[in-house]
Amino acid sequence: MTQPAYPQLETAFTRLYRYQHLAAIAGWDQAAMMPSKGNDARAAAMAELQVLMHHTLTDPALRGLFDAANSEALTPVQQASLREMRREWQNANLLPASLVEAKSLAGSRCEHAWRSQRKANDWQGFLQNFREVVKLSREEAQYLSDTTGVSRYDALMNLYEPGMNSAEVQRIFDDVKSWLPGLIRDTMQKQAGEQVLQAQGPFAIEAQRALGIEVMGVLGFDFDAGRLDVSVHPFCGGVAEDVRITTRYRDDDFVQSLMGIVHETGHARYEQGLPRELAHLPVGHARSMGIHESQSLSFEMQLGRNPAFLQLIAPLVKKHLGEQPAFDAANLGQLYSRVRPGYIRVDADELTYPAHVILRFEIERALIEGEIEAEDIPALWDEKMLAYLGVDTRGNYQNGCLQDIHWTDGSFGYFPSYTLGAMYAAQYFATIRQQYPDLDSRIATGDLAPVFDWLQSNIWQQASLWSTPELVRRATGESLNPAHFRAHLQARYLG
Amino acid sequence: MTQPAYPQLETAFTRLYRYQHLAAIAGWDQAAMMPSKGNDARAAAMAELQVLMHHTLTDPALRGLFDAANSEALTPVQQASLREMRREWQNANLLPASLVEAKSLAGSRCEHAWRSQRKANDWQGFLQNFREVVKLSREEAQYLSDTTGVSRYDALMNLYEPGMNSAEVQRIFDDVKSWLPGLIRDTMQKQAGEQVLQAQGPFAIEAQRALGIEVMGVLGFDFDAGRLDVSVHPFCGGVAEDVRITTRYRDDDFVQSLMGIVHETGHARYEQGLPRELAHLPVGHARSMGIHESQSLSFEMQLGRNPAFLQLIAPLVKKHLGEQPAFDAANLGQLYSRVRPGYIRVDADELTYPAHVILRFEIERALIEGEIEAEDIPALWDEKMLAYLGVDTRGNYQNGCLQDIHWTDGSFGYFPSYTLGAMYAAQYFATIRQQYPDLDSRIATGDLAPVFDWLQSNIWQQASLWSTPELVRRATGESLNPAHFRAHLQARYLG
Repeated sequence: MTQPAYPQLETAFTRLYRYQHLAAIAGWDQAAMMPSKGNDARAAAMAELQVLMHHTLTDPALRGLFDAANSEALTPVQQASLREMRREWQNANLLPASLVEAKSLAGSRCEHAWRSQRKANDWQGFLQNFREVVKLSREEAQYLSDTTGVSRYDALMNLYEPGMNSAEVQRIFDDVKSWLPGLIRDTMQKQAGEQVLQAQGPFAIEAQRALGIEVMGVLGFDFDAGRLDVSVHPFCGGVAEDVRITTRYRDDDFVQSLMGIVHETGHARYEQGLPRELAHLPVGHARSMGIHESQSLSFEMQLGRNPAFLQLIAPLVKKHLGEQPAFDAANLGQLYSRVRPGYIRVDADELTYPAHVILRFEIERALIEGEIEAEDIPALWDEKMLAYLGVDTRGNYQNGCLQDIHWTDGSFGYFPSYTLGAMYAAQYFATIRQQYPDLDSRIATGDLAPVFDWLQSNIWQQASLWSTPELVRRATGESLNPAHFRAHLQARYLG
Repeated sequence: MTQPAYPQLETAFTRLYRYQHLAAIAGWDQAAMMPSKGNDARAAAMAELQVLMHHTLTDPALRGLFDAANSEALTPVQQASLREMRREWQNANLLPASLVEAKSLAGSRCEHAWRSQRKANDWQGFLQNFREVVKLSREEAQYLSDTTGVSRYDALMNLYEPGMNSAEVQRIFDDVKSWLPGLIRDTMQKQAGEQVLQAQGPFAIEAQRALGIEVMGVLGFDFDAGRLDVSVHPFCGGVAEDVRITTRYRDDDFVQSLMGIVHETGHARYEQGLPRELAHLPVGHARSMGIHESQSLSFEMQLGRNPAFLQLIAPLVKKHLGEQPAFDAANLGQLYSRVRPGYIRVDADELTYPAHVILRFEIERALIEGEIEAEDIPALWDEKMLAYLGVDTRGNYQNGCLQDIHWTDGSFGYFPSYTLGAMYAAQYFATIRQQYPDLDSRIATGDLAPVFDWLQSNIWQQASLWSTPELVRRATGESLNPAHFRAHLQARYLG
């Protein structure tokens, strides 16, 4: 008697999930704990694990199992599970091993050289390596496009945001471009007349950490299922059962670090809230990069920078960092809503951030579709930064087109996730506010249950059961609608 | 043309070494970092990795390679390497994969539950998990015994101390039992008339940690290749390139924690001192558990409790914990040589420690040989503690048979290594003192090079190039001779 195929697929993907657990913990350790001389052995061990995971996903036996599982009687959850397993399997099997290896090598070389080239403002040097990364990324995109039938750029974007297409993104971003520059200008005019007190440091690292821990508690982080540590680049890592978030502290500024913790706590609660009984299968994992970002931005932007929330945590700031007028809730609100166009995406405020993303989306899309070449990037960058943010980046590659790590290893198609996430978050909160018209007064008194309960049942517990558009429709009753994002920004900055 | 077999074996064992790296880091994390709810997923991931390592070592292709490598022209180091690869391969091939996985799972479960059961003095609860661990360990022992022809317990002991047998251990321990109780009695009589000042706490954990870090520096620990953290049961983990030691702190006592750090630093320097060019092969790894313990006890007993060393670090103790008369070197010497029979092995002084080991050896040997059952342990424990140390442990499981981690995951056969290690260490220092008659005055002035240089060239750099008896003979000019241990104890405690 032949064994059914679906359970055999579950077994294979459960093994993969356990390998992914080890990769996640080793990766977290590398960033947060490992001393320098440990790196060579760690890199070799993690590369070996990557090879093993690739072998697991390219096992020739899987093809037959996927074919057979199609005609087996499956529950709706199993059908979704099969779809998600197939997606991971296809992504791993569409590309020839030689291309995967060549891109990995070219990406490592380009990224490694970039670390010093960025400091040296050396665009020409970067270009030598980057041309090869672009060439191989286009080849990758072509393979994916040939099979899936979508355009080359869309095929790459689908690796991060399955179901989204660039025509839709362009339509949404064109809408944003029609009102964002005016909103930025009006906000800056309004804020020009406001007095904002800067908090006076130094702020002891231990006190900042204790404050962060307490705010994570307010935000419902489960410390029996996760940790807070320190790394150079803050991230949310680990595994759903044991989420490891990191931050970095500066003793002359607590503002960035505290909101960074709120942001990563959003990622963390998504992971902690995923359905545990599906944790071992792709269908039980987070839906996409855009949805993940919608959780961190629900926490950071919708909740964290909300005046009602700042009213709630102002006493905690004073408790840990001492009394000073800058820590009054109203002033914290001003600190956390200050708008000022700048060079750097990761330092950007809520309002100017989308402009950084739209610029990158437009450039990388044209680059992958073959409409421009790598050497055309700086001129386009300068033009768009001036048009969208009024910032002059000519000759300043370091703080211009050399600032991000994403392109150095060929991660094209990732950038839109950031702003899609911000828009999803605004749409969720519009829905929550309809159900709870008194949301802000609840938040101010520490009753965050309306937010957590809604996210828990509508997003976290849904994992990857639905495509992104379907998930958003089921949660909010409509497709992604940028009007919510615009209304949120207008209310917060001009309201 | 056929490829030579030996390099193919090196490739397979290099892959294994990378998997072992992941297991070591995940294991360290589990003990030092992981929150409680992470344990189930971690246990499953580590069991999967054990299975993978087992598969790597049981690949049928290896048999042909081992056969072929026998007749290839190899350097002496390659011959030793082949011997050590073969030993690992044989140990792994004796056991069925299902048993390896079952034991790993049962061990993780039992160990995890033990962490709270010990606190609750819950022997009955522990027994529920522990019976399964014993059953699977006996099965393991039976498999090993069937092939190697030695008894079940000896087969397990050989995993930690290859070449040693329980008859020889019993002979040595019977010798110790013939003079140890008298030596303990005489020492206690001598010390009864001595005045010892107890240090007055509390001692801030951060200050204790800073003191530990500085003493690790004096002992040559490389902080670019390792870390100090906290765990319930102190250990030395991680990998040779990145050694992770742990300790635990009490704010009313710094004595145990500080010497625990010295102990683990001995393990760590062995790992850090292994030949890096052989790190990826079994021949480049530490020789055995007994030799490993001989390093930690060289540091803790021969060096750390030496009055000359305490003279060296007394100023550091005062620097971090504040001035008090109890921190004078002479008084520290008395604190660190105080003999008092007690419940806890890891808290035991140098003189009563062997009694704790002999008791465990006798119980675990009988347990594995099937002469007793798990439920018989408490009564035997009580009886032997009373006979060897005059200590009443009835009903006190927490500080009795539930105190050690070793049995929780089925590491039977390990305990003898501690006292064998103490004996090797005494023998090394007898040799070093012959070469450096002024050793103590050098140590007192901070010149620890004679000790480190001797260990580096005679033990650390030798890795697994020789069998344990050959290693000891080459280093000291004679076989293991317990007379050095007895002479050392008599000189220190009655001299």
